[in-house]
Amino acid sequence: MRVAIVTFDGFNELDSFVALALLNRVPGWRAGICGPGEALTSMNGVRVDVQQKIEFASEADIVLIGSGVRTREVVSDAKLMARLRLDPARQIIGAQCSGALVLARLGLLKDVPVCTDVTSKPWVVATGAQVIEAPFHATNSVATAGGCMAAQYLSAWAIGRGAGEEAARAVIDYVAPVGEKAQTVARVMGVVGPFLAVDGERASTSLSPNGSY
Amino acid sequence: MRVAIVTFDGFNELDSFVALALLNRVPGWRAGICGPGEALTSMNGVRVDVQQKIEFASEADIVLIGSGVRTREVVSDAKLMARLRLDPARQIIGAQCSGALVLARLGLLKDVPVCTDVTSKPWVVATGAQVIEAPFHATNSVATAGGCMAAQYLSAWAIGRGAGEEAARAVIDYVAPVGEKAQTVARVMGVVGPFLAVDGERASTSLSPNGSY
Repeated sequence: MRVAIVTFDGFNELDSFVALALLNRVPGWRAGICGPGEALTSMNGVRVDVQQKIEFASEADIVLIGSGVRTREVVSDAKLMARLRLDPARQIIGAQCSGALVLARLGLLKDVPVCTDVTSKPWVVATGAQVIEAPFHATNSVATAGGCMAAQYLSAWAIGRGAGEEAARAVIDYVAPVGEKAQTVARVMGVVGPFLAVDGERASTSLSPNGSY
Repeated sequence: MRVAIVTFDGFNELDSFVALALLNRVPGWRAGICGPGEALTSMNGVRVDVQQKIEFASEADIVLIGSGVRTREVVSDAKLMARLRLDPARQIIGAQCSGALVLARLGLLKDVPVCTDVTSKPWVVATGAQVIEAPFHATNSVATAGGCMAAQYLSAWAIGRGAGEEAARAVIDYVAPVGEKAQTVARVMGVVGPFLAVDGERASTSLSPNGSY
């Protein structure tokens, strides 16, 4: 699987790098920083080289859009947005925090519950999206997560969708704190597991959040 | 507070960037990637510019050493190790996973419990360190964490030591997943809180891990 971690200038390091590190743990997967230009500078001044051009997102099997302090400028750049063509029928797509603004701009969040962070919420609401008070939600092959550390949920879901629930459990188990492996896997899979059932739709609200998932 | 996120080639993105992102959330703090050379390449091929020379670690108020796939080579490089001078009497010092090998090499882990990840454990044990099955431990101003996602514990502890427990709570609250703020703060502070008491030493084993901390 080829994974594009779509990243823009002013990016939040947590979102892009948690996703990149976790998805690269899946055998055979290759996740890289995908963005405009040759290099990007994070919200805290870290300069990183772009590994894939922004156009790569159209070809990737999985596309995860990180957040940052300049996402409103990004989505108002029509020329840049035109370079980003996504297809939920063919791709697994996710966005973190303000990354939801990008998916909204691309018309991918119509009539579905959307997660984002407190700071981005007013802007996401302004796009007409239905923002919910939850860390993670997916509708079929499009997911959103809210709050930096929810990056682990978005990542676990993408792995689960692309490589199966056992692969997601294995990666979370690997990166979980020592001595907290089982409870971390239970917590993460409790959040994302229901969205891995039957074609990615929430199977039932009666599922225990920390149950068999 | 000036914070050095000590990073080497082959670094684990989770360790360095979780710490960098969290510590930069503290008003007035400045955390940057500190390492040898002009640029570093992560274990997954991400090239980042170094923000501070490795010698900056000697001047920084807080020094957090990330892990990576080449830490054994790093610690066997006497010339490189000689450039890294740390002082626990003056600095808040921490290491993540294989970063414990660096602290051991500098003689900072003598006769104290040490945390590291499963992969690094045999190498850390070989230095003579007492490795424990826990995600986090601190003795006075030197701490170690094991398992990538334990980076949040190391970061919360460093913030708590340098800016107080309330600052640590505020940062964890900010980055926690939406809808899980209170339980995330309770979990993280439950782990690191006991190490923030009375000069950083564990106050008492009778403290509830999810209690008033």
